[in-house]
Amino acid sequence: MTTPDLAAHVERGLTDLRDLVALQSVSAQGRMLNETAAAVSRLLEAEGFRVQAFPGEVAPILLAEAGEGPFTLLIYNHYDVQPEDPVELWHSPPFTLTERDGRLYGRGASDDKGELASRLAAIRAVKEQHGGQLPIRIKWLIEGEEEVGSPSLVQFVETHQAELQADGCWWEFGGLRDDGRPVISLGLKGIIAVELRCKLADSDLHSSLGAVVDNPLYRLARAVASIRDDQGHILIPGFHDSVREPTPADLAALETIDSGEKHLKDTFGLKRVFAEGTEYAYRTNFKPIVNVNGWGGGYQGQGSKTVLPAEGFVKLDFRLVPGQDPAHIVHLLRAHLDAQGLQDVEIVELEAHQKSARSDMTAPFVQACISAARHVHGEPVVHPSAGGSGPMHPFTDTLGVPCVAAGIGNSAGRVHAPNENIVKEHFVKGVAFGVELIGRLGKGG
Amino acid sequence: MTTPDLAAHVERGLTDLRDLVALQSVSAQGRMLNETAAAVSRLLEAEGFRVQAFPGEVAPILLAEAGEGPFTLLIYNHYDVQPEDPVELWHSPPFTLTERDGRLYGRGASDDKGELASRLAAIRAVKEQHGGQLPIRIKWLIEGEEEVGSPSLVQFVETHQAELQADGCWWEFGGLRDDGRPVISLGLKGIIAVELRCKLADSDLHSSLGAVVDNPLYRLARAVASIRDDQGHILIPGFHDSVREPTPADLAALETIDSGEKHLKDTFGLKRVFAEGTEYAYRTNFKPIVNVNGWGGGYQGQGSKTVLPAEGFVKLDFRLVPGQDPAHIVHLLRAHLDAQGLQDVEIVELEAHQKSARSDMTAPFVQACISAARHVHGEPVVHPSAGGSGPMHPFTDTLGVPCVAAGIGNSAGRVHAPNENIVKEHFVKGVAFGVELIGRLGKGG
Repeated sequence: MTTPDLAAHVERGLTDLRDLVALQSVSAQGRMLNETAAAVSRLLEAEGFRVQAFPGEVAPILLAEAGEGPFTLLIYNHYDVQPEDPVELWHSPPFTLTERDGRLYGRGASDDKGELASRLAAIRAVKEQHGGQLPIRIKWLIEGEEEVGSPSLVQFVETHQAELQADGCWWEFGGLRDDGRPVISLGLKGIIAVELRCKLADSDLHSSLGAVVDNPLYRLARAVASIRDDQGHILIPGFHDSVREPTPADLAALETIDSGEKHLKDTFGLKRVFAEGTEYAYRTNFKPIVNVNGWGGGYQGQGSKTVLPAEGFVKLDFRLVPGQDPAHIVHLLRAHLDAQGLQDVEIVELEAHQKSARSDMTAPFVQACISAARHVHGEPVVHPSAGGSGPMHPFTDTLGVPCVAAGIGNSAGRVHAPNENIVKEHFVKGVAFGVELIGRLGKGG
Repeated sequence: MTTPDLAAHVERGLTDLRDLVALQSVSAQGRMLNETAAAVSRLLEAEGFRVQAFPGEVAPILLAEAGEGPFTLLIYNHYDVQPEDPVELWHSPPFTLTERDGRLYGRGASDDKGELASRLAAIRAVKEQHGGQLPIRIKWLIEGEEEVGSPSLVQFVETHQAELQADGCWWEFGGLRDDGRPVISLGLKGIIAVELRCKLADSDLHSSLGAVVDNPLYRLARAVASIRDDQGHILIPGFHDSVREPTPADLAALETIDSGEKHLKDTFGLKRVFAEGTEYAYRTNFKPIVNVNGWGGGYQGQGSKTVLPAEGFVKLDFRLVPGQDPAHIVHLLRAHLDAQGLQDVEIVELEAHQKSARSDMTAPFVQACISAARHVHGEPVVHPSAGGSGPMHPFTDTLGVPCVAAGIGNSAGRVHAPNENIVKEHFVKGVAFGVELIGRLGKGG
């Protein structure tokens, strides 16, 4: 074994990152997706990966493979990014990786090109360590549709189950807290996004007619108020019936999480937080919830206008947990609204459903990731599930592979927003974590 | 008594109307209010009125007086108009009275310059009938702030109670239905306009945080859903306690109203109408209600956005009935929201309160108006109250004068909207009604 020149691999990785950020691979706008897929392919082929590209609905899906060994590691990343607007809020050009005060700014610097580049740098370092060979088999799935809901991925994983079989999956995202502790997540919530619409007239009326004509915004208020209670608990009959409860190991993990609700309260001036401590962590990890994302209808200008609006809408997202099927939840929501007498409130599904995913806390791969993180960063904060959503379910459930999100994000990383960034030192430590993880897996965990 | 040349008075009245419409007296924008007040003064002085102008908050209030006789008639009109925008939807210039297909188009043609001009024409005709004299005393109050909520009127009436004393008040608005029957209203609902606001964070958050952070749009939904039931009945404790119930005469009038809900349903494609027939008329006339005028918050664009909004608002108007005090209703609303645990939902009052007004159906002046309308137009439809609101309360309650709204509007008059109009023949019949009414009052009713 050679001791690799990590600093050199970091430098090269940052060059890769600069090149990748310069490619404006905005999937929502279909920009430069083929060019970016080709550039990523070239980077991987240069390291000895055999790369196949498969057509996706929006962008090519890359599946790369290299190495041999006692462990097969599946890696998931994506090369597409969110749109850069509002561009005027960026302090440096969004597609030019720019260093300021120890941070690297650019669209995709964190989500997800920074992670992709740091992992590639780690792989190069491991190869240097092992005389040009990888001590494990790596399968690397890199899609270009993550920021538009991964519309091709479920089908792709089902079709390519055999090729994707692995002993563990290193998922995208995750990062380092302000105190330096790494955050590792073992799952994601599912999601359904819907719009409730109510239209009760062909045109707006004078509000004096409210004595005899019902109001669509009231109907929507009734619907929303009936769906949850004041503590955020969902009241739709049957909603919780198929929930798969957290395991004893999942619950034990909560005790180790310093949830940070005080920090969140102070940073964002929060007036109503549902819970503290372990209960806060429990809800983030395990509680299925509903959000009101937006509401519109009638007069929204200054002062008053005595109008009875013809129609209105509310946008909701449901965050689901393992065991809950999105299509069935929509069915239960419809039945609930009907039972409430709200047949006039229409449900419009806005985006692809995603099921929840959660990996087994006790799986050897999970424990290897935790050990590697502890070795490189210090004691990790392990979340049985993140509060967010993503396309992890086909991996955990269709392939049956435990997934671990361990990345290089930071609490001020402004992912999806102007001035997205990573802390440069986190990139360095991310490379070190990759070397440590692959090394451990090559030795059997 | 001379038989007056009604056609000549109509022609002269339409000339007055053309001149008045040309004056862009938009009170919301402070446009040409002094000029219009001066023009109205000149028209009245030419007929022998002594005109005083009093400063209002926005525009002069005119009080004119002429004639002697057994009856003192107070007339209420206003010379200000609504803004003309969106001006591109007008088929002819908004401030140029334009005849098309038997209708006269222009801002203020109906509300309220058409009524003002038709009443002046009637007064000229009555004077011709009576050798240049009026058979009654007329006090004419004409304000220029009606379209901005009459902010000076309550105080003005209180200060000038003695000068304003009268036996009856001929109110603005009212009109003729499509079947030619005149609509007379004896009252108005009161109004309070408020905005409910809820802000729970300093900035928008990612919606995955909805597991632990409450949602301001849900809080507003709870508030709105708690204020009324599915039939539009208000649930605020104490809200109905001080309601003055309709009299037997008021209730008897309902039976004669063909409420027209079928026409309304068909015209506007209404999906949820609370009641039919007498119950429909009862609600329009007597039921206090709440309207949701508008709702805004969070993401309102295409598709979904997984945001937890920091804040939101709902605009409401309450329509009140006699006995209900607007300030007390706001107090009850606050107490109700507090009792519901909604201390975080703020109430912002948007505009001046107006109390409800209702005149005694059996008053001789009311019966004289009904008889005059029956004589000129045919059997009237008499509403104990209109569903709308206006500054009638100081007249009915401070002065103790019965008020009757009998005007020249029509169901397609597009008041407050582009292409406001009157039917030319209704102007003619409005002049005839004025002559008939003043003549009857001169003979003692």
